[in-house]
Amino acid sequence: MAFDYDLIVLGSGPAGQRAAVQAAKLGKRVAIVERQRMVGGVCLHTGTVPSKTFREAVLSLTHVPSLAGGTPVERPRPTMRDLLHRVNQVIERELDVVARQLSRNGVDLVSGTASFVDPHMVSVAAQGAGSARTLTAADILIAVGSVPAPPPVANDHRTILTSDDILTLDELPRTMAVIGGGVIGIEYASMFARLGVEVTVVDRHQRPLEFCDAEIVDELIHQMREARVTFRLGEAVKHIDSQPEPRCADIELESGKRVVVDAAMFSIGRTGATQGLALEKAGVVADERGRITVDAQFRTSVAHISAAGDVIGFPALASTSSEQGRLAVCAMYGIDAKPTRAGFPYGIYAIPEISMVGATEQELTEKKVPYEVGVARYEEIARGQILGDRSGFFKMIFHRETRALLGVHCLGTQATELVHIGQAVLSLGGGLDYFLETVFNYPTLAECYKVAAYSAAKHMRARPGA
Amino acid sequence: MAFDYDLIVLGSGPAGQRAAVQAAKLGKRVAIVERQRMVGGVCLHTGTVPSKTFREAVLSLTHVPSLAGGTPVERPRPTMRDLLHRVNQVIERELDVVARQLSRNGVDLVSGTASFVDPHMVSVAAQGAGSARTLTAADILIAVGSVPAPPPVANDHRTILTSDDILTLDELPRTMAVIGGGVIGIEYASMFARLGVEVTVVDRHQRPLEFCDAEIVDELIHQMREARVTFRLGEAVKHIDSQPEPRCADIELESGKRVVVDAAMFSIGRTGATQGLALEKAGVVADERGRITVDAQFRTSVAHISAAGDVIGFPALASTSSEQGRLAVCAMYGIDAKPTRAGFPYGIYAIPEISMVGATEQELTEKKVPYEVGVARYEEIARGQILGDRSGFFKMIFHRETRALLGVHCLGTQATELVHIGQAVLSLGGGLDYFLETVFNYPTLAECYKVAAYSAAKHMRARPGA
Repeated sequence: MAFDYDLIVLGSGPAGQRAAVQAAKLGKRVAIVERQRMVGGVCLHTGTVPSKTFREAVLSLTHVPSLAGGTPVERPRPTMRDLLHRVNQVIERELDVVARQLSRNGVDLVSGTASFVDPHMVSVAAQGAGSARTLTAADILIAVGSVPAPPPVANDHRTILTSDDILTLDELPRTMAVIGGGVIGIEYASMFARLGVEVTVVDRHQRPLEFCDAEIVDELIHQMREARVTFRLGEAVKHIDSQPEPRCADIELESGKRVVVDAAMFSIGRTGATQGLALEKAGVVADERGRITVDAQFRTSVAHISAAGDVIGFPALASTSSEQGRLAVCAMYGIDAKPTRAGFPYGIYAIPEISMVGATEQELTEKKVPYEVGVARYEEIARGQILGDRSGFFKMIFHRETRALLGVHCLGTQATELVHIGQAVLSLGGGLDYFLETVFNYPTLAECYKVAAYSAAKHMRARPGA
Repeated sequence: MAFDYDLIVLGSGPAGQRAAVQAAKLGKRVAIVERQRMVGGVCLHTGTVPSKTFREAVLSLTHVPSLAGGTPVERPRPTMRDLLHRVNQVIERELDVVARQLSRNGVDLVSGTASFVDPHMVSVAAQGAGSARTLTAADILIAVGSVPAPPPVANDHRTILTSDDILTLDELPRTMAVIGGGVIGIEYASMFARLGVEVTVVDRHQRPLEFCDAEIVDELIHQMREARVTFRLGEAVKHIDSQPEPRCADIELESGKRVVVDAAMFSIGRTGATQGLALEKAGVVADERGRITVDAQFRTSVAHISAAGDVIGFPALASTSSEQGRLAVCAMYGIDAKPTRAGFPYGIYAIPEISMVGATEQELTEKKVPYEVGVARYEEIARGQILGDRSGFFKMIFHRETRALLGVHCLGTQATELVHIGQAVLSLGGGLDYFLETVFNYPTLAECYKVAAYSAAKHMRARPGA
């Protein structure tokens, strides 16, 4: 049987894009199916790109350079309209980049909503069109991404809302609750706090961002509190009422506390966007959160159907999804692609920014790996002084005996960039001596590596090995 | 004979500071001699720190965030007073950091102007004090730094001036000539251009910054021209007149062209600040540019007298000077310190910023090393879009056969930080595959490494090895 395509990719987010391009580069006939006006996936439309652009607009429009005598430059409080102006510009540009890349590689872009007809056939219903068309392919990659888990009460997209709605608000709320202290919740909580919104974060856990180094999270909480964020940790929502006049959300916590706010954003996890795909017709099963389980080659239980990106769950980052897309296609066509190197980085675009690579102190303590820590504070570094970021905090963890680098954890300006230096050293097997022997540009934040290395070296000398 | 100290360090810039602290950490009795109010050396007072802080103030005060509809936020044109406000704050803080570090390590700080009495004795004349005191030491490190070469006509510090004077001007000139297109000249030329000053750069060479990759320099010149900088390359000053009313410098070039400007800054190299040291009494000889020649252990022709930092010449960067200070002291006391790793970086804090590590295309072509280049432009990278830097340019050079990384060259926002990722890969022997197999945070400028790696991989495939 002749198929229309070698590969159909469902979804054009980072995983789908990269997979389609990779397959095209291997000479395959590829179609990518995406809902109308959604090329780029949630990454581009409601996820990573808008939130990071919004963040940059927040930083830019709230940054107050001071003139002589410390007089701050006068600046109006930004409106949502001001903030979203840049966001839309960037989305437009990135849309172009994605569309051009797909077309340059000869990937067919099919607009519409896909659902399986059988394991090799999908039906694509275009919005408004009477009938759907069908496409067949030898292989299919599911890269449909994820959607926010729905709030426990009716989502009015204004008072009760999710991260999908937050950048469609007409005006800045004065007060806001963020229910769920995961990456998305913390990112938006810190951005709105910077804008002067009074933010309350509610999370069931005693500590948000549990996969991060505890000292870094402590520092984050400290800095967010300085920006007047209230944390309600180890607390859960018992009841929530949305009231029309004055419009507000009245939240009752299980502890009896009440939080009354202009807007309550639920960021209580994301579910695989597999509803409507008719997975059962392909013989693929999603779990109760809409996620698809795959093997190390990104294959589902049906050999010619793979899945990659947010739809397969953790870590669900644009960076890892893109890499999964590439690896899934390489596996599909028997190309020897090395799996992602150990030590992939996490970036959390809160204000301040957080990034990490490698192990946390908690993990190493649990595994009984002997280590020493070296730290640097941005205020000790000329570049930190020049940037005016005195609160940045940086640490490296080294093996007590081998001096190998085990982890890098950073909170502050450019943390997500900075961590890649440590990532290279970690991946290529370098350690403490690399940093002691290397010259860094002056003044840079990269000097944190040097300062932290000296600090670690001092600890190693001070406490001779067991 | 008992000496007052084990080590006297002359000069407290990056080389002197680091040397003094290193020796103190080895248990040595150390004194550091510095002219009054000059702790930190020129790096802190008229060199690196002020110029980089000034640069950040320029960027901050000229950055115009746009509101919805593209309306720029209103902003007064900054004055010199505004710009220098931050500079002085940062200098004060850094002074504290240096002084605290020296005192914490038990280094004596002796204020005054040093000169040799004999090979083991220096005399220190404090300003205003009647008599000088003398200090003796077993070893002496000369780390007195450098001063700008004097202009060919009388320096009035206002119309005819050097980089030492530029940040003492009362007001921004309207027009300015920069004579000498080295690192310092280009840095200030680009900063003043950003401030709206009409700048002309005059250089004898056909190309400024000859040690940099030619493509990067071409791009820099292009961008500086867009900021209305005029380049007069391959041109020399024949005659210069400083006129009182209206105050201006009237410059005649050898080609007959004339440049009439409010201020002419000469950045025609720097000379070792060895005048007044009475080197002859120590038996040390400086060359005609005041520089001291040293061996691989940083020893002068007199075995117990070493020299480090700008006073020994190229590359004369704060980063390398600091490392030289450390290595000089380790050599002095027979400590096995590894020499600086191959591949130390260059950072040029122009607007835009430039940084490089490893080889240039010119060098490799000359040595007949077969290579392929991979490039990335910030405008292709989500982070570049988000930052609004569409002109950033990044390239890596890989060995055609071994795929080893040979060089990284970058121009644009955070170039001086970004280059350290490549530096780690270069130093630890990584190559193209490292970048192909590594996940980078999204969105970051670090993704340039990924994009450039794909671009290089494509070139390698396209042209099979000879």
